[in-house]
Amino acid sequence: MKKTMKIFDCVKHKDIPAATWKWHIQDPASQRLTWNKTPKSVLVIKKVRDDSLLKPFKELCVFLTEEKNMIVYVEKKVLEDPAIANDENFGPVKKKFCTFREDYDDISNQIDFIICLGGDGTLLYASSLFQDSVPPVMAFHLGSLGFLTPFNFDNFQTQVTQVIEGNAALVLRSRLKVKVSKEHKEKKTAVQNGVEENGLMVKSEKEPIKQTKYQVLNEVVIDRGPSSYLSNVDVFLDGHLITKVQGDGVIVSTPTGSTAYAAAAGASMIHPNVPAIMITPICPHSLSFRPIVVPAGVELKIMLSPDARNTAWVSFDGRKRQEICHGDSISITTSCYPLPSICFRDPVNDWFDSLAECLHWNVRKKQNYFTEDEEEEDDF
Amino acid sequence: MKKTMKIFDCVKHKDIPAATWKWHIQDPASQRLTWNKTPKSVLVIKKVRDDSLLKPFKELCVFLTEEKNMIVYVEKKVLEDPAIANDENFGPVKKKFCTFREDYDDISNQIDFIICLGGDGTLLYASSLFQDSVPPVMAFHLGSLGFLTPFNFDNFQTQVTQVIEGNAALVLRSRLKVKVSKEHKEKKTAVQNGVEENGLMVKSEKEPIKQTKYQVLNEVVIDRGPSSYLSNVDVFLDGHLITKVQGDGVIVSTPTGSTAYAAAAGASMIHPNVPAIMITPICPHSLSFRPIVVPAGVELKIMLSPDARNTAWVSFDGRKRQEICHGDSISITTSCYPLPSICFRDPVNDWFDSLAECLHWNVRKKQNYFTEDEEEEDDF
Amino acid sequence: MKKTMKIFDCVKHKDIPAATWKWHIQDPASQRLTWNKTPKSVLVIKKVRDDSLLKPFKELCVFLTEEKNMIVYVEKKVLEDPAIANDENFGPVKKKFCTFREDYDDISNQIDFIICLGGDGTLLYASSLFQDSVPPVMAFHLGSLGFLTPFNFDNFQTQVTQVIEGNAALVLRSRLKVKVSKEHKEKKTAVQNGVEENGLMVKSEKEPIKQTKYQVLNEVVIDRGPSSYLSNVDVFLDGHLITKVQGDGVIVSTPTGSTAYAAAAGASMIHPNVPAIMITPICPHSLSFRPIVVPAGVELKIMLSPDARNTAWVSFDGRKRQEICHGDSISITTSCYPLPSICFRDPVNDWFDSLAECLHWNVRKKQNYFTEDEEEEDDF
Amino acid sequence: MKKTMKIFDCVKHKDIPAATWKWHIQDPASQRLTWNKTPKSVLVIKKVRDDSLLKPFKELCVFLTEEKNMIVYVEKKVLEDPAIANDENFGPVKKKFCTFREDYDDISNQIDFIICLGGDGTLLYASSLFQDSVPPVMAFHLGSLGFLTPFNFDNFQTQVTQVIEGNAALVLRSRLKVKVSKEHKEKKTAVQNGVEENGLMVKSEKEPIKQTKYQVLNEVVIDRGPSSYLSNVDVFLDGHLITKVQGDGVIVSTPTGSTAYAAAAGASMIHPNVPAIMITPICPHSLSFRPIVVPAGVELKIMLSPDARNTAWVSFDGRKRQEICHGDSISITTSCYPLPSICFRDPVNDWFDSLAECLHWNVRKKQNYFTEDEEEEDDF
Repeated sequence: MKKTMKIFDCVKHKDIPAATWKWHIQDPASQRLTWNKTPKSVLVIKKVRDDSLLKPFKELCVFLTEEKNMIVYVEKKVLEDPAIANDENFGPVKKKFCTFREDYDDISNQIDFIICLGGDGTLLYASSLFQDSVPPVMAFHLGSLGFLTPFNFDNFQTQVTQVIEGNAALVLRSRLKVKVSKEHKEKKTAVQNGVEENGLMVKSEKEPIKQTKYQVLNEVVIDRGPSSYLSNVDVFLDGHLITKVQGDGVIVSTPTGSTAYAAAAGASMIHPNVPAIMITPICPHSLSFRPIVVPAGVELKIMLSPDARNTAWVSFDGRKRQEICHGDSISITTSCYPLPSICFRDPVNDWFDSLAECLHWNVRKKQNYFTEDEEEEDDF
Repeated sequence: MKKTMKIFDCVKHKDIPAATWKWHIQDPASQRLTWNKTPKSVLVIKKVRDDSLLKPFKELCVFLTEEKNMIVYVEKKVLEDPAIANDENFGPVKKKFCTFREDYDDISNQIDFIICLGGDGTLLYASSLFQDSVPPVMAFHLGSLGFLTPFNFDNFQTQVTQVIEGNAALVLRSRLKVKVSKEHKEKKTAVQNGVEENGLMVKSEKEPIKQTKYQVLNEVVIDRGPSSYLSNVDVFLDGHLITKVQGDGVIVSTPTGSTAYAAAAGASMIHPNVPAIMITPICPHSLSFRPIVVPAGVELKIMLSPDARNTAWVSFDGRKRQEICHGDSISITTSCYPLPSICFRDPVNDWFDSLAECLHWNVRKKQNYFTEDEEEEDDF
Repeated sequence: MKKTMKIFDCVKHKDIPAATWKWHIQDPASQRLTWNKTPKSVLVIKKVRDDSLLKPFKELCVFLTEEKNMIVYVEKKVLEDPAIANDENFGPVKKKFCTFREDYDDISNQIDFIICLGGDGTLLYASSLFQDSVPPVMAFHLGSLGFLTPFNFDNFQTQVTQVIEGNAALVLRSRLKVKVSKEHKEKKTAVQNGVEENGLMVKSEKEPIKQTKYQVLNEVVIDRGPSSYLSNVDVFLDGHLITKVQGDGVIVSTPTGSTAYAAAAGASMIHPNVPAIMITPICPHSLSFRPIVVPAGVELKIMLSPDARNTAWVSFDGRKRQEICHGDSISITTSCYPLPSICFRDPVNDWFDSLAECLHWNVRKKQNYFTEDEEEEDDF
Repeated sequence: MKKTMKIFDCVKHKDIPAATWKWHIQDPASQRLTWNKTPKSVLVIKKVRDDSLLKPFKELCVFLTEEKNMIVYVEKKVLEDPAIANDENFGPVKKKFCTFREDYDDISNQIDFIICLGGDGTLLYASSLFQDSVPPVMAFHLGSLGFLTPFNFDNFQTQVTQVIEGNAALVLRSRLKVKVSKEHKEKKTAVQNGVEENGLMVKSEKEPIKQTKYQVLNEVVIDRGPSSYLSNVDVFLDGHLITKVQGDGVIVSTPTGSTAYAAAAGASMIHPNVPAIMITPICPHSLSFRPIVVPAGVELKIMLSPDARNTAWVSFDGRKRQEICHGDSISITTSCYPLPSICFRDPVNDWFDSLAECLHWNVRKKQNYFTEDEEEEDDF
């Protein structure tokens, strides 16, 4: 994988060491997929319970094993689908598969690249399977173009061949590393000889702090969950309290996520090559709470405000929703494991195509938008 | 000037050369001002025609020359102000000044750092004086805190001393390099023996393409100028037409400029350390024309649409407004000459302070924002 | 209660009956409170479980009963608060109270006017007590000014006296009449001799359609409730499908509600005297889904889309949240029972005061907003 | 013209005169065009200098004069177009026309209804011709549907016949009455025996206040005009200062205008049947300056702030732009001369059709909007 940087020497000022003024600006068109040696193994991820995907899935697997002689990894649960399990014609191909189960088998070092069949959600799922480094991902949309699924399945053979031969552009999609720390709670057990409390003899033990980690491709959402009210939530940046959230919640998203839920909440859209983190309030009570964009290098921390009367809820790319109580904290930094996403054309064109297709960005009527527009004063 | 980079090794995948996966994320708190040798010369820029600045200006100059033994550069027109020219007490100090005139004298290699007295506009002016590298700038606000003027003048002696001693954080504010190319026009002169045209003998000559360059700290604005109608304007990114602007105009801004005119036009606010360019429409006819953020490394080009019926106007940090006609083009890239702005505290705190102070960002009523907020169902 | 209408005769065109062209425009400043005879009975509503309200509540009740000889109605649950029940000094006053219980006792014809102590939520609760006509309401804020609570308690005696004497302006706040129709469901019971289904003998009976009605002062919210996903929701106006909602939900609000949750979701703010209904999407997936304002006279209906995969949830002024399934419908019209709200000054000033106080509407820094603003080109 | 009002009796409270509680809510679907006697004369307005309109214009005129025996009024300048003047076939029809000139001939009492051919701008022009009452207007779009031009020309004969027979719904579009008062200026003339001033003998005379009036269908815009800076502008409502505008300007619009320039500036869209006035800032410096909607019955006044350093400019439906100086004032009220606009279907359907067609309001991708949307957790 080759990555060119335009490096400029800036402000060569007499008394200032020139070397320290380097200004790293990455050309988004410059990243290419390059293989050290021919890829041998591919993980095929298929959205389950979607019959329209069965035929493409089988065609793809036959092509990969028989034409390309690749080792195909598939999730166990995909093969358990009766429509696949009972298909006798598919039997010989199926036999060659390597299977694995989520959370059980670690295949992260055995996969050269990934092929996804489904929608953007399928790619979010693929991302969640790799908590460390992620192999390059080639994502096909079967219905309409998605932000994360640029490839059309129609001539998949040519396209997969191009990827195997290394003829493809890449976009490195940054992910967020999220740590949720649940505070040690006092756990009380009724025992024979303990301290009396409410008429019971109890022994109290402190549970240790429990930390869970997530790699997130779109966003972390802190909201009111099933409750009618959001607790006030405090947002810290590099240790400083920067603001309090009153409203339905707050979204911390990658540039990739800026076109998902954050866009619905009013954020500007950020190209995935910009190293940044976006903070977007959800229906904030304050008219002046505009979304902001901070550098990728900062550390964010989110906690309930000390005076909060309700809890909050957190979710990760729309999954694993959990409650956040007083003392708990969510720490968010840019992950050092981005998701390398294989482009259909290149990072710039793919992005503008999906803006147009998925969000109708600046789609306009050909003429006559507003009345002011077309009419000259003398022509009325 | 020292700049630390957090460099992460990412996606160490067996068949992919690890070295190509480096992920450069800059910690915004890491930039510091460091001198190779003690600074000797300082340029003092004062907003003209503002009497409230006279006393601070004189105090500062006396301090710099007499206490700090520095060579002070001042613009000629500042000293021509009668309130300065006729002040006898100030005479001895004034004599030691080096003076220069905008567009005449090149002092860019003689200045160690700059002190600005005025508002954000004064700093924009300072930026325009340096079309190549810019010395570090220390900007005082005399009234209220500005986005670009973090220093309070009250104890200026201590603060200037800190800067001279190198105890200060820096934020490198990216600038935009803008090239305006006016197409060669056919110039026709009435002559004795030329081609007949409308009953006249004319000679036609092609004027050469004329290019003008600007360094912009906040934004380039393309709008309808004095006209009632904006021509349709085409926006290209790395050579591809990405969208057409119908409306009052379009703003191409740096992150620094995202809190200025772009914020008024609805953009999200971007921290100056994010290497990005923001594109914000002004009152677009299309409801779906949301602002976007693209990587700092791209090249933008803006032209009238071929079918446009009116001209457009362009301005640079609010100055040098000029007309854009068919065939003219405006090319915009991130400049390799950022403006090093000396922080009062650090890049993060200074930014959030100015968001609160200048834009009342998420300033909320202490309690009771909306009715939903405070009331539990059972408490009504 | 006096209400003046400016009635204009318009377009007296020769062949068109002039009388049909009347144009009714109500002057918002023209509504006044007027009594046919001196008011005798007052309902005092106090937010429960808020100790800061105890002293004002007692002072007010003593004043009303002893100084003004009024019959005071109080909710039973308010008097059960130990801080009131056990206060011996308050005993003699308390004895004179008429008490009643929500949902049990109908007092709507016995009350001349209402006094509220609490926040906006207390007034929403008061509104919910009157499903038909509502007596005029005088609402005190104890802390900071609310949208619905314009009176300051400091000199309550003078202010209450003014109201009793009929010296007050009124704003008629429109409410929404909401009918929720739950479709007849087939209810199946296992019986001895029924139809076999899954190995059981069952008898199926249709439950009748169940209708519930609500009077809403702020808004009806249809959202995803505790679920992670909103079903698609269809919005009908006077029987025509006008749009489909994809996103977090949709708010149907009165002008009064336009400054509450709808404002958080991005709506323009509407003065309570405008006869209109506002439809505001919550985090819509479509960039072009702008809030709209329709005339007060229309009928809206909201249902799950036929192809929806999840349910939706509805709530009324933030209360009585319930699930909406396939076949259920929510019908919304402007109620013919508005809430007459007594003004502190008048409908216009009260509204702009609360916009400033509660939402900081267009609160600006005194000078120097943006850099462009203050700086002339020649002054830099 | 028939107009039904739903009139509700509200809050029949014992001590309050019931009659004063009437609540007028107009059903937008209830207005119909009705003629006292068959219409005889029609004004045909055609956008000039648009060749594509020549054929439809001639066909329409032939149909009206020969088939329907109507008296056709046409503007003199329309007939002066060589393409019409020199068309011999059209001669006999043309001879029967009544012609008139803008600003010269008053035909307002001679026209039964108006037919417009052109875009929304043509209808704005038609509106400007009638400063008092306006006959009903039937507007054809020749290209794409406009907000103000609902009729398609394809089967114009049937549609015009329907209108003549009174089979049509109407929407009364409110207009704004705008008065611009230019203060008396001191006019100084150099004379022989006057007062010395700057070495000249001058006589000073006060010019009287000059008032100009306009009827506006879309909006009044106060902006910075050709200047780079807007002066601060003060907005008064019924005599009270309600806010100050800092930014590019402010739009005061009718509900009809809410879908034009106001929509571009971020306003919610208001159905033309809502009796209201919308106030929308253009690129305001304050993040919290949300658009507001006030009742149709108020009086607005706009002036330069006393401390303003620049002038402002005002225009009316995009025309007649003029400068506003210190002491000048713009007063705006709802006109009592609305524009009766003939509907293609009815006020509700026409409006939603034009929202979809002209603004792509909530146009969505059929499926897969955002990734969250379609994906269930277990299906990924």
